[in-house]
Amino acid sequence: MLTINRLSHEDALLLIEGARYKAIEIGVPMCISVVDESGNPIAFERMDGGKVTSITVAQDKAFTAAAARKATHDYNAACVPGNLVFGIHTALGGRLSVVGGGLPVLVDGQVVGGIGLSSGTPQQDMECAEAGIRYLLARLG
Amino acid sequence: MLTINRLSHEDALLLIEGARYKAIEIGVPMCISVVDESGNPIAFERMDGGKVTSITVAQDKAFTAAAARKATHDYNAACVPGNLVFGIHTALGGRLSVVGGGLPVLVDGQVVGGIGLSSGTPQQDMECAEAGIRYLLARLG
Amino acid sequence: MLTINRLSHEDALLLIEGARYKAIEIGVPMCISVVDESGNPIAFERMDGGKVTSITVAQDKAFTAAAARKATHDYNAACVPGNLVFGIHTALGGRLSVVGGGLPVLVDGQVVGGIGLSSGTPQQDMECAEAGIRYLLARLG
Amino acid sequence: MLTINRLSHEDALLLIEGARYKAIEIGVPMCISVVDESGNPIAFERMDGGKVTSITVAQDKAFTAAAARKATHDYNAACVPGNLVFGIHTALGGRLSVVGGGLPVLVDGQVVGGIGLSSGTPQQDMECAEAGIRYLLARLG
Repeated sequence: MLTINRLSHEDALLLIEGARYKAIEIGVPMCISVVDESGNPIAFERMDGGKVTSITVAQDKAFTAAAARKATHDYNAACVPGNLVFGIHTALGGRLSVVGGGLPVLVDGQVVGGIGLSSGTPQQDMECAEAGIRYLLARLG
Repeated sequence: MLTINRLSHEDALLLIEGARYKAIEIGVPMCISVVDESGNPIAFERMDGGKVTSITVAQDKAFTAAAARKATHDYNAACVPGNLVFGIHTALGGRLSVVGGGLPVLVDGQVVGGIGLSSGTPQQDMECAEAGIRYLLARLG
Repeated sequence: MLTINRLSHEDALLLIEGARYKAIEIGVPMCISVVDESGNPIAFERMDGGKVTSITVAQDKAFTAAAARKATHDYNAACVPGNLVFGIHTALGGRLSVVGGGLPVLVDGQVVGGIGLSSGTPQQDMECAEAGIRYLLARLG
Repeated sequence: MLTINRLSHEDALLLIEGARYKAIEIGVPMCISVVDESGNPIAFERMDGGKVTSITVAQDKAFTAAAARKATHDYNAACVPGNLVFGIHTALGGRLSVVGGGLPVLVDGQVVGGIGLSSGTPQQDMECAEAGIRYLLARLG
């Protein structure tokens, strides 16, 4: 039998809150998704002005980061023609996202979920994802 | 040019909050989805214990209620073999939900969004959806 | 080698125009789709107030009527549990529509396309589809 | 509550008319799609000779341009291996189009919809999309 550590509903809302504060600070309305360690959504928010395409993109980034236990920007770096990883971006009907902005959430060295953002540049999306994780970890004590 | 009224991010969080309070009261952890008047997600929460299948079902109920401007239980009543509406439940890849628990959100007689719940019985899902709408309308003044 | 008769772009616009006039007359804003004899879209219109879910439903009705050379309400009548046709409504990922409102367009006894409407009751949808066909045939001389 | 501006049915037909005139002028039969600000189709036409594959491609270009508020050729420029945006072209099941020919429609600085064309070269598609927008804006006064 396995015992799994997983983000709670409350943890997910803290991740979103932290990411949203950063999004407000940089002035970019975001789509923010949090999933559990299996890649299943726990919480999602589209801020006023977040893009409709980013609803799915944010969810796919969070899904990929948690389920593959890898930041989407790390996949992006490897997903170049000629590299054996290339092509991974079409897997799962394109749901495996290699666009920067998805991060696994680690607690005590274990992936317990993922966070994904979309609507800004990938760099802005990543910055807000990181802010969400910092915000959660500061509150987990 | 048309002018459309749409739930804001803040409105969506109030709908979810009201539905969640009712879910806690009746002791059923729920998946709760809120979409805008075009059927696009604004906010989603899966309470601890909400079902994984209900993630999509809740979203599809909210989508259907808003985008078809009809409660999903009203579709359910009409979707019986021999009725000309029968078969609508497989439309949009099955995304058009005829399972009770999705309600359009009306403000000043206009559909401005939709709310969908899943994880309980359809009656429990409907009860929480109604609670969410009452909670929002009381706060819109 | 086969020779196929097919609705032209101009014919498709006439079908939509005729259906739209009827929709205005009965006061129900509709989604109206016209496809060719192979089921591929030629023209589509969503009137102001047409439902978002009806975009796809109208297209699927037109597709079914043309590609199966059968009115969708005829499929509806046969698609009852216990009948060997039952289950056809989930074919093609649910794209095969058995909801009333899709009609094949026949010219000189041949199916040259299909028209599908959605947003009203199936009876209203069927009435507008018939009006579109009458409108076209009157102009084909 | 939010207030949104959206293309009307009449606006959509003007966009298509303007694009069609340009397509006739350059001698390339086109598939032309117009969607609202949420990415949902309002009108579509396939001119006689328009390609069957272009039916979906035109719709996806219009969807992307409106829902992401960005021209598809701008996505194309950013979607190169090694760039953090690379991979966005497989998002939404490949529905997020990075092929030139989709433009957001802006009125008073707001995205109110999108137009997408397909069947020609991307440059021809873009030229006709621009012509459609010019034609509409000249008539909005």
